[in-house]
Amino acid sequence: MKLYDYPGVPNPRRLNIFMAEKGIEIPRFQIDLLKGEQFSPEFRAKSPNCDVPTLELDDGTCISQTNAICRYLETIHPTPPLFGTTAKEIGVIEMWNQICFTNGFQAVADLFRNGPDWFEGRGLIGPHNYEKIPALVERGRVRILNFYEDINHHLANQCYFAGNHFSAADITALVTVDFAQWAKVEIPEQHKNLHHWHALVSERPSVLSNS
Amino acid sequence: MKLYDYPGVPNPRRLNIFMAEKGIEIPRFQIDLLKGEQFSPEFRAKSPNCDVPTLELDDGTCISQTNAICRYLETIHPTPPLFGTTAKEIGVIEMWNQICFTNGFQAVADLFRNGPDWFEGRGLIGPHNYEKIPALVERGRVRILNFYEDINHHLANQCYFAGNHFSAADITALVTVDFAQWAKVEIPEQHKNLHHWHALVSERPSVLSNS
Repeated sequence: MKLYDYPGVPNPRRLNIFMAEKGIEIPRFQIDLLKGEQFSPEFRAKSPNCDVPTLELDDGTCISQTNAICRYLETIHPTPPLFGTTAKEIGVIEMWNQICFTNGFQAVADLFRNGPDWFEGRGLIGPHNYEKIPALVERGRVRILNFYEDINHHLANQCYFAGNHFSAADITALVTVDFAQWAKVEIPEQHKNLHHWHALVSERPSVLSNS
Repeated sequence: MKLYDYPGVPNPRRLNIFMAEKGIEIPRFQIDLLKGEQFSPEFRAKSPNCDVPTLELDDGTCISQTNAICRYLETIHPTPPLFGTTAKEIGVIEMWNQICFTNGFQAVADLFRNGPDWFEGRGLIGPHNYEKIPALVERGRVRILNFYEDINHHLANQCYFAGNHFSAADITALVTVDFAQWAKVEIPEQHKNLHHWHALVSERPSVLSNS
């Protein structure tokens, strides 16, 4: 296998934390997003959605989308499980993974990519160029703060997003919170549960080695 | 189990097609989205994200988010598999499920919810109100047409999104295409592969019984 990667940016970071939790090593090839290497004809042939990370299997099949690569890896390296083992765990983890991605991660991406710190014409990730929409900056900021309030409430009675075990949902949420700092949005001080969770997960070796 | 449902709208339709493919029946309770029943205190206690569909298990655990409910059901009713069985199938199906949802379904939602046919202050699904952003209407239309061109190309060499078998990715794509018709966007005539796939999947009993 080969992993096409660009360390440090949010989606590759999600995958790298996931792999570190499982102790998985795969040879890495860097696709320099700032130089636009994800749009080269060679890389598009592997990842038509111009996504990093992308995993190339030994038979040439390529899998992009962070969740999809994680699910592939969960199947071949099931321990420790990060998407759950019982049906209930599997459902609850996927619910929080989706909620954190949609309400959190995508809100941060809207705020960051539509503001002055990102490239013109790249308001959305993916193979096509879309102009920035300035109204998404402020909506993104409000969404993140609403998300923080909601998850602070959710974390009142449990250590992690899906109960008592660290899961893929915590990885998505952690990377979202740290990504929001790029866009200068911090967790409000009063959200004690969220601060406690963030400190707890930030101490994990998988996170420390991908910070 | 109990399923909180509102038949006909896109996310519940995804789940209902998925269940029909597996022959799963669960007692249904209707949450009338047009009357705002998803925001009632009773329903928020089950689904803090105010999502329909939501599945309530016999122990009271509630699972919302269509993909999460589908993964729960895939685990307890694995046949026929709709998320794959080998690691490669699992990865490829999740990749296309995510791409179709992000590039297709969410683009249609942007177009539809930010236009004149939807409620004021409900530019986004979920527990919070956000004003419509008119620029998302035209961006949504362009994104759908780009998505159609991309998936028409993808379908040139295979019957279904993830190869030779119908999967959860096809359900997400089918519901996206039909949802786009609500927003008056049709598949362009020249996209023959996409038209062929749409006709093929539209004939399935699971789709005919949820149309």
